Amino acid sequence: MKGTSKGQLKTAVIGSSGYTGGELLRILLGHPHVAVTAVTSEKSAGRPIASLFPHLLNVTDLVCEAFDPSAIAKKADFAFLALPHVTAQGAAYELHKLGMKVVDLSADYRLSDPALYEKWYEHRHQYPELLDEAVYGLPELHRQEIREAALIANPGCYPTSAILGLAPLVKKRMIDPASIVIDSKSGRSPSPAHHFPEVNEGLMAYKIGTHRHTPEIEQEISLLTGEQVILSFTPHLVPMNRGILSTIYARLSNETDTGNLHALFAEFYKNEPFVRVLPRGEFPNVRNVRGSNFCDIGVYADHRTGRAVVVTAIDNLVKGASGQAVQNMNLMMKFDETDGLLSAGMFP
Amino acid sequence: MKGTSKGQLKTAVIGSSGYTGGELLRILLGHPHVAVTAVTSEKSAGRPIASLFPHLLNVTDLVCEAFDPSAIAKKADFAFLALPHVTAQGAAYELHKLGMKVVDLSADYRLSDPALYEKWYEHRHQYPELLDEAVYGLPELHRQEIREAALIANPGCYPTSAILGLAPLVKKRMIDPASIVIDSKSGRSPSPAHHFPEVNEGLMAYKIGTHRHTPEIEQEISLLTGEQVILSFTPHLVPMNRGILSTIYARLSNETDTGNLHALFAEFYKNEPFVRVLPRGEFPNVRNVRGSNFCDIGVYADHRTGRAVVVTAIDNLVKGASGQAVQNMNLMMKFDETDGLLSAGMFP
Amino acid sequence: MKGTSKGQLKTAVIGSSGYTGGELLRILLGHPHVAVTAVTSEKSAGRPIASLFPHLLNVTDLVCEAFDPSAIAKKADFAFLALPHVTAQGAAYELHKLGMKVVDLSADYRLSDPALYEKWYEHRHQYPELLDEAVYGLPELHRQEIREAALIANPGCYPTSAILGLAPLVKKRMIDPASIVIDSKSGRSPSPAHHFPEVNEGLMAYKIGTHRHTPEIEQEISLLTGEQVILSFTPHLVPMNRGILSTIYARLSNETDTGNLHALFAEFYKNEPFVRVLPRGEFPNVRNVRGSNFCDIGVYADHRTGRAVVVTAIDNLVKGASGQAVQNMNLMMKFDETDGLLSAGMFP
Amino acid sequence: MKGTSKGQLKTAVIGSSGYTGGELLRILLGHPHVAVTAVTSEKSAGRPIASLFPHLLNVTDLVCEAFDPSAIAKKADFAFLALPHVTAQGAAYELHKLGMKVVDLSADYRLSDPALYEKWYEHRHQYPELLDEAVYGLPELHRQEIREAALIANPGCYPTSAILGLAPLVKKRMIDPASIVIDSKSGRSPSPAHHFPEVNEGLMAYKIGTHRHTPEIEQEISLLTGEQVILSFTPHLVPMNRGILSTIYARLSNETDTGNLHALFAEFYKNEPFVRVLPRGEFPNVRNVRGSNFCDIGVYADHRTGRAVVVTAIDNLVKGASGQAVQNMNLMMKFDETDGLLSAGMFP
Repeated sequence: MKGTSKGQLKTAVIGSSGYTGGELLRILLGHPHVAVTAVTSEKSAGRPIASLFPHLLNVTDLVCEAFDPSAIAKKADFAFLALPHVTAQGAAYELHKLGMKVVDLSADYRLSDPALYEKWYEHRHQYPELLDEAVYGLPELHRQEIREAALIANPGCYPTSAILGLAPLVKKRMIDPASIVIDSKSGRSPSPAHHFPEVNEGLMAYKIGTHRHTPEIEQEISLLTGEQVILSFTPHLVPMNRGILSTIYARLSNETDTGNLHALFAEFYKNEPFVRVLPRGEFPNVRNVRGSNFCDIGVYADHRTGRAVVVTAIDNLVKGASGQAVQNMNLMMKFDETDGLLSAGMFP
Repeated sequence: MKGTSKGQLKTAVIGSSGYTGGELLRILLGHPHVAVTAVTSEKSAGRPIASLFPHLLNVTDLVCEAFDPSAIAKKADFAFLALPHVTAQGAAYELHKLGMKVVDLSADYRLSDPALYEKWYEHRHQYPELLDEAVYGLPELHRQEIREAALIANPGCYPTSAILGLAPLVKKRMIDPASIVIDSKSGRSPSPAHHFPEVNEGLMAYKIGTHRHTPEIEQEISLLTGEQVILSFTPHLVPMNRGILSTIYARLSNETDTGNLHALFAEFYKNEPFVRVLPRGEFPNVRNVRGSNFCDIGVYADHRTGRAVVVTAIDNLVKGASGQAVQNMNLMMKFDETDGLLSAGMFP
Repeated sequence: MKGTSKGQLKTAVIGSSGYTGGELLRILLGHPHVAVTAVTSEKSAGRPIASLFPHLLNVTDLVCEAFDPSAIAKKADFAFLALPHVTAQGAAYELHKLGMKVVDLSADYRLSDPALYEKWYEHRHQYPELLDEAVYGLPELHRQEIREAALIANPGCYPTSAILGLAPLVKKRMIDPASIVIDSKSGRSPSPAHHFPEVNEGLMAYKIGTHRHTPEIEQEISLLTGEQVILSFTPHLVPMNRGILSTIYARLSNETDTGNLHALFAEFYKNEPFVRVLPRGEFPNVRNVRGSNFCDIGVYADHRTGRAVVVTAIDNLVKGASGQAVQNMNLMMKFDETDGLLSAGMFP
Repeated sequence: MKGTSKGQLKTAVIGSSGYTGGELLRILLGHPHVAVTAVTSEKSAGRPIASLFPHLLNVTDLVCEAFDPSAIAKKADFAFLALPHVTAQGAAYELHKLGMKVVDLSADYRLSDPALYEKWYEHRHQYPELLDEAVYGLPELHRQEIREAALIANPGCYPTSAILGLAPLVKKRMIDPASIVIDSKSGRSPSPAHHFPEVNEGLMAYKIGTHRHTPEIEQEISLLTGEQVILSFTPHLVPMNRGILSTIYARLSNETDTGNLHALFAEFYKNEPFVRVLPRGEFPNVRNVRGSNFCDIGVYADHRTGRAVVVTAIDNLVKGASGQAVQNMNLMMKFDETDGLLSAGMFP
């Protein structure tokens, strides 16, 4: 087990008992410049984290503590919040006030308009002034602001997969934004609340037209186009443990072909360490990103229908949550952006 | 095991060794008015069918034979073809010539335009005159012609799920046909050619813009609208044994709400024994149709985007293949349309 | 949907909301001599059963009622109890007193010794006198008594798979009973209480040495040998929806070979409609019994170790619960033993 | 992507295209003291390894070459053989002759008696003299010899799980070796030759009494007892991608309890970095070792039957193959034994 070496960033994981908390630990415990110095869980205070996550036995002997902002601020300089939304609001505020850098994995600081937050989350935002400071942590779009930020709103899993698939198209005005349809398919994490025999061999859409990730996608796409975009987003649940595949449809503004589309994406993402534009004619499979921070993208220009079809694949717990959170930390701390994140995924 | 009672329809399953052949046997062996008198398989001629399908041990002692049209015509009055396309063409022709009624589960007689067949299947159709006689076997749209037909082209699995979800909308001119996007997710049948560790925990789109079921869907939707419709269809592979979920998007022609849409669907399918329009606000899950001939449908009118979203679920081996084939046989033979088909599916 | 025809047995399913209740309905609704006239569920009284089990929509319009013994006795002549143990005790007693025939799917009447029940279930049996009347409903061993019984204790799923694999060996004194080891692997039914991402890609043993099905297996094996047998039984959970595979090891009393063992099993079960002794050299796979009432058996005599290895496969919800319950009803009511039960299973 | 730093061990993976080859690359590419300088594949010579394993895209740009011993010896000092047995024999011989250190993941050098090899593998061993030099690479039993070895026979997956569960018991003469029964359950790797719909929701035993890992287990257990042990071993296939759970039964020589057994195992493995003896009363689940090099062990003394029950869990591709191979390399090269191997597994 790793101790704290001099020069390592002392890091706390607030709300460690869920899947994203566990995944943060998996990544951070292998990070060359990080020492995890505190993990919190209200329910499991006093228990070793490995008793919650038996796969961490002999990997870490961290013990959960109850969340106390000042105690955390004494032990750590950086905090990841893996808390439910609403709860995260105050925690982010307290730790920020105490001078810590914070990446919040909840939705609480993602929507820059507090009215929009209130509408979709049915809860008044308590810290609208802090909302102004928060940066939406999608490095491919906001790298520079992330580097300067003290509070990062880590993107949702679906929005990550959708925005990365749409950004080159809308930025280059290749499609009609009013025609966007996003059909996303997700494995079962991060929530464990699905019983095996009802999920296994099952497949369903849910929250059609009403999923809370919709305004988050619209906010970022609107920023890119400069006008308010309304789009269709439908999430589905698929019997897998991890992974999101998003299939994105939009009407092409002008005639083009797959070669052009592919070249556009390849150019747009050419310096991105975690976006892999697949060879022309290939399309992503979630099995190839499982356990890794990559977003794989395939594109197709359908001359019959005049539509672009873009398919993206991410691991919802990594690029869709904890991996992207660490990527943001790397940027904020001026580490190499890929530190701790460039291991191969797990196949099969 | 069941023998042949007087008055039972003598039935042959041509090409029994695949999943659709096996599923035909499962259904036909429980059908009150049918006796299966012949099963064919070139590769397994002389072997009991239960040696290919161990789940049929003690259920049937049928022995596979090589396909010989005259021999079949002596033993049976009705034939199901569970053969690959191209191969099925000639078999249908021969059996039809010998006076048998035929349901062809392949794609060979589905497209009424032989030029379209040649374009998508890269093979010239050998029996264009028989194509004229064949009826597309979707009972919800063509029940009357099916009753009079001698040759049925049994619909593809994806088209069944797509057309049933679109028919009320296009027939009632509720949507702009040019805006249709069909995003379908399928379990792994009927082809066994997918290795477990590469499918399990995997999820991918395939044949984007080029899947052969596309013209079949367009043919039927165009028939309903009276004009040529071009639409987007993307199939996906999901780690399940059975089931197709299709999520269908289209722009609403006029403002409406979910209540209206739901009423439209409920009315359109009110006499259909195998279409279940779910209660308003509920959406289908493939687990609820597994092993049954039902098509479950849920609808949503999204006022934000002006789109209708329709979700349909079928078992691709039953309503998407063998069950629908038996439904067609019931119609052709003037049996009760639900005979042998109204058992509950299997849950979980 | 089926009504009640004259001459059909009026049947109630008490405790319909669990998986075994649902599976009873699937089988009974297709049974030629049965009309289901009542279904009970305390929690869901007043709701259609199809709102609990959406796969039953359009198959039945039965409505759940609260359990009231006299009301049930007026509506039905036969009852299946799909209740938790302890709760089933009183329900069986009441319905029996009112003259109904009862198959109890719980463990409450399986152990003939009330002291044993108290030891393993940590609850004193309230109706020891009724215990004397109850018959252990494994038709392969107790067919004659089942025919005469008014109360059947339907066997547990693991015991069914274990006892059928051991019976020929112990009855014919081929093995040393003290050497028996039963290693069973089960899918996730009947309990839904397992979250998908923790079950999927998981595999574990549980209740080692302490599972309550142990004394039930020992009781039946002891009956066959005439002396008290103590054996090892370990259950495991496997990521599947249905099915139990039991691998059984025991030291052979005398040298023999697989041919002899196979002949012994084939002879022992030659008249059994639901036991399939596989061809010599073949071993069962749960996929071949899914949805069916069959128990598949394969045998091997290992000359190297002097052990017999027997592998059995059942669907835990059918032969391991609801199917066997209906088989018992068929015997009690003098129906054909296979009525409603001889449909092929579902593959894949 | 990582280049070759000075001081790093130049390593070749021979036979890279299978699952164990892919897993070796995943681990080696993250190893602090290793540079992979060559990968071979006859079929894919000239193609980037990432075209075979799309999850390695942007992680490595290695290109497959055909296997040429002298070319390899020029590029690398250490070789892992991920070849089929028989093929591996000659490759090991050639590379060894050229002075390379070799870990052979096949079965070719595991059985020290060439007659035994010939009997079980139906092939005469071509290099019996090299067999004498090879060391069986289970560090928990042979650490010292491994450190000095030039050729390691990396253990099979089942044997690793079985031997680690048995070693403390047989070494301390706690059980009767003649009573050992090993019931193992495995996910589908390393062979991809299993079609999804026939594996999913399937469960079966295979090669009962005849699996080639049997003599390997017996060889190591016999070494520990000092006499020839014959035992029962049955492998099963379970619908998961990775993992082996072995449930081991043996008659206790003397009365003991679970506390004593647990203490024995805890003491035996107290210095082992990759064996986790779980807290008393807990039993392993393969989900907790997925992607990691750990072997989890739980023990139970059953006073009713007088048997010990030991359950072990490993990832068959890591501790059961590629991870253990790297552990052996670490020992041979005097690296820290855990280098590159102490990352947390992936959950869920």
